[in-house]
Amino acid sequence: MLGIGRTGWIEKNTPECGPLDALVKPLAVSPCTSDIHTVWEGAIGDRHDMILGHEAVGEVVSVGSLVRDFKPGDRVLVPAITPDWGSLEAEAGFSMHSGGMLAGWKFSNFKDGVFAECFMVNEADANLALLPDGVDIASAVMLSDMVPTGFHGAELARVQYGESVCVIGIGPVGLMSVAASALRGAGRIFAVGSRPRCVDAAKQYGATDIINYRDGSISEQIAALTGGRGVDKVIVAGGDNDTFIDAVKICAPGGIIGNVNYLGSGDYVKIPRVEWGCGMGHKTIAGGLMPGGRLRMERLVSLLKYGRLDTSILLTHRFDGFSHIEDALFLMRDKPRDLIKPVVMIESD
Amino acid sequence: MLGIGRTGWIEKNTPECGPLDALVKPLAVSPCTSDIHTVWEGAIGDRHDMILGHEAVGEVVSVGSLVRDFKPGDRVLVPAITPDWGSLEAEAGFSMHSGGMLAGWKFSNFKDGVFAECFMVNEADANLALLPDGVDIASAVMLSDMVPTGFHGAELARVQYGESVCVIGIGPVGLMSVAASALRGAGRIFAVGSRPRCVDAAKQYGATDIINYRDGSISEQIAALTGGRGVDKVIVAGGDNDTFIDAVKICAPGGIIGNVNYLGSGDYVKIPRVEWGCGMGHKTIAGGLMPGGRLRMERLVSLLKYGRLDTSILLTHRFDGFSHIEDALFLMRDKPRDLIKPVVMIESD
Amino acid sequence: MLGIGRTGWIEKNTPECGPLDALVKPLAVSPCTSDIHTVWEGAIGDRHDMILGHEAVGEVVSVGSLVRDFKPGDRVLVPAITPDWGSLEAEAGFSMHSGGMLAGWKFSNFKDGVFAECFMVNEADANLALLPDGVDIASAVMLSDMVPTGFHGAELARVQYGESVCVIGIGPVGLMSVAASALRGAGRIFAVGSRPRCVDAAKQYGATDIINYRDGSISEQIAALTGGRGVDKVIVAGGDNDTFIDAVKICAPGGIIGNVNYLGSGDYVKIPRVEWGCGMGHKTIAGGLMPGGRLRMERLVSLLKYGRLDTSILLTHRFDGFSHIEDALFLMRDKPRDLIKPVVMIESD
Amino acid sequence: MLGIGRTGWIEKNTPECGPLDALVKPLAVSPCTSDIHTVWEGAIGDRHDMILGHEAVGEVVSVGSLVRDFKPGDRVLVPAITPDWGSLEAEAGFSMHSGGMLAGWKFSNFKDGVFAECFMVNEADANLALLPDGVDIASAVMLSDMVPTGFHGAELARVQYGESVCVIGIGPVGLMSVAASALRGAGRIFAVGSRPRCVDAAKQYGATDIINYRDGSISEQIAALTGGRGVDKVIVAGGDNDTFIDAVKICAPGGIIGNVNYLGSGDYVKIPRVEWGCGMGHKTIAGGLMPGGRLRMERLVSLLKYGRLDTSILLTHRFDGFSHIEDALFLMRDKPRDLIKPVVMIESD
Repeated sequence: MLGIGRTGWIEKNTPECGPLDALVKPLAVSPCTSDIHTVWEGAIGDRHDMILGHEAVGEVVSVGSLVRDFKPGDRVLVPAITPDWGSLEAEAGFSMHSGGMLAGWKFSNFKDGVFAECFMVNEADANLALLPDGVDIASAVMLSDMVPTGFHGAELARVQYGESVCVIGIGPVGLMSVAASALRGAGRIFAVGSRPRCVDAAKQYGATDIINYRDGSISEQIAALTGGRGVDKVIVAGGDNDTFIDAVKICAPGGIIGNVNYLGSGDYVKIPRVEWGCGMGHKTIAGGLMPGGRLRMERLVSLLKYGRLDTSILLTHRFDGFSHIEDALFLMRDKPRDLIKPVVMIESD
Repeated sequence: MLGIGRTGWIEKNTPECGPLDALVKPLAVSPCTSDIHTVWEGAIGDRHDMILGHEAVGEVVSVGSLVRDFKPGDRVLVPAITPDWGSLEAEAGFSMHSGGMLAGWKFSNFKDGVFAECFMVNEADANLALLPDGVDIASAVMLSDMVPTGFHGAELARVQYGESVCVIGIGPVGLMSVAASALRGAGRIFAVGSRPRCVDAAKQYGATDIINYRDGSISEQIAALTGGRGVDKVIVAGGDNDTFIDAVKICAPGGIIGNVNYLGSGDYVKIPRVEWGCGMGHKTIAGGLMPGGRLRMERLVSLLKYGRLDTSILLTHRFDGFSHIEDALFLMRDKPRDLIKPVVMIESD
Repeated sequence: MLGIGRTGWIEKNTPECGPLDALVKPLAVSPCTSDIHTVWEGAIGDRHDMILGHEAVGEVVSVGSLVRDFKPGDRVLVPAITPDWGSLEAEAGFSMHSGGMLAGWKFSNFKDGVFAECFMVNEADANLALLPDGVDIASAVMLSDMVPTGFHGAELARVQYGESVCVIGIGPVGLMSVAASALRGAGRIFAVGSRPRCVDAAKQYGATDIINYRDGSISEQIAALTGGRGVDKVIVAGGDNDTFIDAVKICAPGGIIGNVNYLGSGDYVKIPRVEWGCGMGHKTIAGGLMPGGRLRMERLVSLLKYGRLDTSILLTHRFDGFSHIEDALFLMRDKPRDLIKPVVMIESD
Repeated sequence: MLGIGRTGWIEKNTPECGPLDALVKPLAVSPCTSDIHTVWEGAIGDRHDMILGHEAVGEVVSVGSLVRDFKPGDRVLVPAITPDWGSLEAEAGFSMHSGGMLAGWKFSNFKDGVFAECFMVNEADANLALLPDGVDIASAVMLSDMVPTGFHGAELARVQYGESVCVIGIGPVGLMSVAASALRGAGRIFAVGSRPRCVDAAKQYGATDIINYRDGSISEQIAALTGGRGVDKVIVAGGDNDTFIDAVKICAPGGIIGNVNYLGSGDYVKIPRVEWGCGMGHKTIAGGLMPGGRLRMERLVSLLKYGRLDTSILLTHRFDGFSHIEDALFLMRDKPRDLIKPVVMIESD
């Protein structure tokens, strides 16, 4: 990213590493919708000559003097969120906000991202995880952001055995929320979306009912399908400020609306007063950035390792070679109908 | 209540009781702001010839054939919320929404209220509690609604030891939220209000800083007092849909905003997008009707019995005799500056 | 059950129903290990001429005057635990202990069980659930006790995404704990058992490693397989008081041991002091009776309806006709090696 | 500590500091029962020439190159537990077990303690907290261990508004558990102890009933006082492995037993099988080392600053001057009847 709306390749010095940090070169990367927001919508403000990218599997190049658990040559998972673990926010259990709201998000935000020959990982022992043998690299790239973000939706919504869930939005994050709901024991799962490829994936991940918002309002369709009762939990993984109107309407009293969608524009998220029980309906609205760090990566990769989750369904487009990162980025920007998520293999596997 | 905007006395038959129910005559009652909303704002829709009131201490007159734990003559606490305990919502832990959102609220909503010679309590064994010896009747009337609602604010916000809390609104409910925050171990407690009598009470209940919204925006004042950090938790006990703008602004990432204020008008509660972390700030917004029922009453009255809480500070005006209920209601409507809460003693103590 | 150690058929009057209750005739039943404990070990004390059985799918015969949601002819799921929902314990969220510890367990304990021409269900609206179309009756009998008990193990242990879990004991309840762990997102799942049929079922339900206690101590085997780290969570679904020695040893600090095994003899459950961190290791020990009631049944049956869980794997033996209940009971007592669980179909499907 | 059973003064080099660490000199210290266990009982194994002590308020002498928030001269609170915040255990929310069970406890365990001219604090930014103006140094020393440990008992037991609590043991930690129970909104609080000075303090901190174990078994006395019902929550802050027999007996179903007592001897903690509901009574047994670190210190000191908690009641004995540390240690060992806790002021205030 050269500036808002402009991308290109630039030469930069190798990033500096402190005693707790590591240098990593990417083995595979994937562009994210956030990258698109950053470049073409200026979502996080103006940035100049910043390297994009925060989804990668890599290989350790070098480590700082205090790093104990990783060494050059290790193949590692790199989370999009790499907190400062000694911060007050991390001590409070919200490491993704270490140093300030959302400030655990460093790659392609406060520092250069992973679309580079090598990149720096802060607090390497606490933020990297080894890629286990037998886990496919391309599938593992989805662990940087898509899986932890999508799964956080189901965590925020605290899905319980047999509950009904509605996932609004079935891009790659929403699809992971569908999978996460099934993997926390949800019963009926409504998925709101329209693109055929995503709808197919949603069914594979466990959706029982597909709601196409082109067929009428989400809330009316859900009401019709549930006898007016609505759903126990809602996960918002797409849409905008107005999406919460439907989300609150379909949520039963005592339910939770878990948001993992980045809301990029508008002044106010709209909570419909009456359907929110005039403030008293126990429809909790929670939204949060994915938890990052090493433990998160180790736990989520075990889902791949033991066959609980198959992220390869997401990988609709594959590129080979560093030089194709820009192609993948443009693909993500242009969103062809058959796209879920592209991956770029830097080195042949 | 004869109709919207009209009050008066009417003759009604003694209410019918099922086998699980009880008839109770009031010993002391208190009008609530909700009664004012109901009559003069039509908040719950049109009602005709409905008896108002949902705050009372009473004496059991008769009980249904399946009632085991209460008998005529027992002095009892009567919660404003009297759930159907066998409902699906109660089984899910949200008894206040038994039978539908907010439908655990029955008195002066779905059935006649407590401003009557006698009133019916559904599921008496599950919804009444004995008034312990030594607890003052007038103080105990505050346990019907003011205490459980105010305390629920601190429960929703999950106040932890040493956290900073801001309570917005210090009418009787907000004052109980201040007391509840101190009683859950909060450190610094900001209270937002302006009436001197309420400010004095807030300090007695544990507020450390008073914020007068007439001196500037709440969020700017809190920012100035906290070095821009904000507070760990927010309890909303007053204001309107726009109050959430300030509430979200002052809430630190990882915090919770607990609402116990009935929002009576407007289409949408406003959540400021950017300060809500674009949906990712982990600023949870929770709002809910007070939990009712017998256990709740038994637990809260123990706070009075053992001297943890003194509700008498709330009781600024006292009337003696049934006929003064209307005076108390008008007082509540007109809100003189020195009013916190009136109580009407039906029988001399 | 005629007395301890003696079984046989007796004639009894049709049970009396109150206004909230229902009479139900069984369509399919299953004997439980608890029945064996009750008869041949006298686990719950001496009982005379008590009808056994607490696992059934049935058909409503008649309902009390206050029952609203069920009518004669309805096919219903019957939970083993049928609480008094208006009790203080239920209000506190522990309905299974309504009226006293474990007292939500009524069938074949405080009142006659389901191995009868018809049986009484207390608080029918709150304790029965409709059998959805398309759900197999035999599979649904497992929802009375095996599924809710096994799943409660994973609930007590609060299994999270990617955590490692060890399930000790893989009889029918333990197998459901394995399934429940996978369905709450566990990564690696160790299952402790030896019978081949159960081992096969454990793998089908998601176990990744089988530990045979005949190959050495559980804790040493787990230590060897985890590099000494142990597991995040432990579910105890078999064994005795001494099983907790291993359970505590293999549990990592911060872990939870969830017990759903009925401990039938011995004075003290043994918690090894040193491995429990001298009382300070944050290895929480939780154990509890399954939650019963209608909501629980509705939620769990949705797992069958939507194909999340297949209980038919448990049903190794099938009998047809009421008269075979005793055969099934004796089978359960004698536990042949290929038995997981028998079911008795009362009426041909 | 020279070896087990032997104490004395030794000369040591100034401890080495890494880039994240700080050197601190004590301003006030207090010996702890743990120190007594360490020296005279060899509780943590043999240690040679190790400096004792883990309760201190100090002044920063120097800081490592990466420390940002503290500088020489700062007056600081020093928690007994100083975790490695980048460890997997800390990421999981159990920082006190960073690097292994209990391994967040470093002072006078893995490294030299605070009874020295200066001592090293690892990860200073994450583990120290500024002493606010106006907070008494002697009172603040209680924040190192007595307050966070005692309060953790009430956190483990998750005390809720109006619940009844029994605190077993009213030494300084147990007294803080009494205060913590009152500060989380407990109603009736039973305190088990006999020394008059401690009994007086327990009443000041909010105990409503004193149980003297010399008057009969704890469980029988509690049963008599509660009509056989027991208490909602139990905090164990004294006793031994057998104490849990009474703790389980008096705990109502659905309750929690929170242990903060270091269990120094014996093989097995005893859980009475029948009273534990044969494993199914939902009487959760939780025990854990206090959470340490900066945020914990900042939050707890705010309770002192805002007058919620007065730790000076604990300080029955005061010494002035570094050379009196040994006197205080011997006093702690000999436990005269009027002792609760001694403090040694190193520099005159």
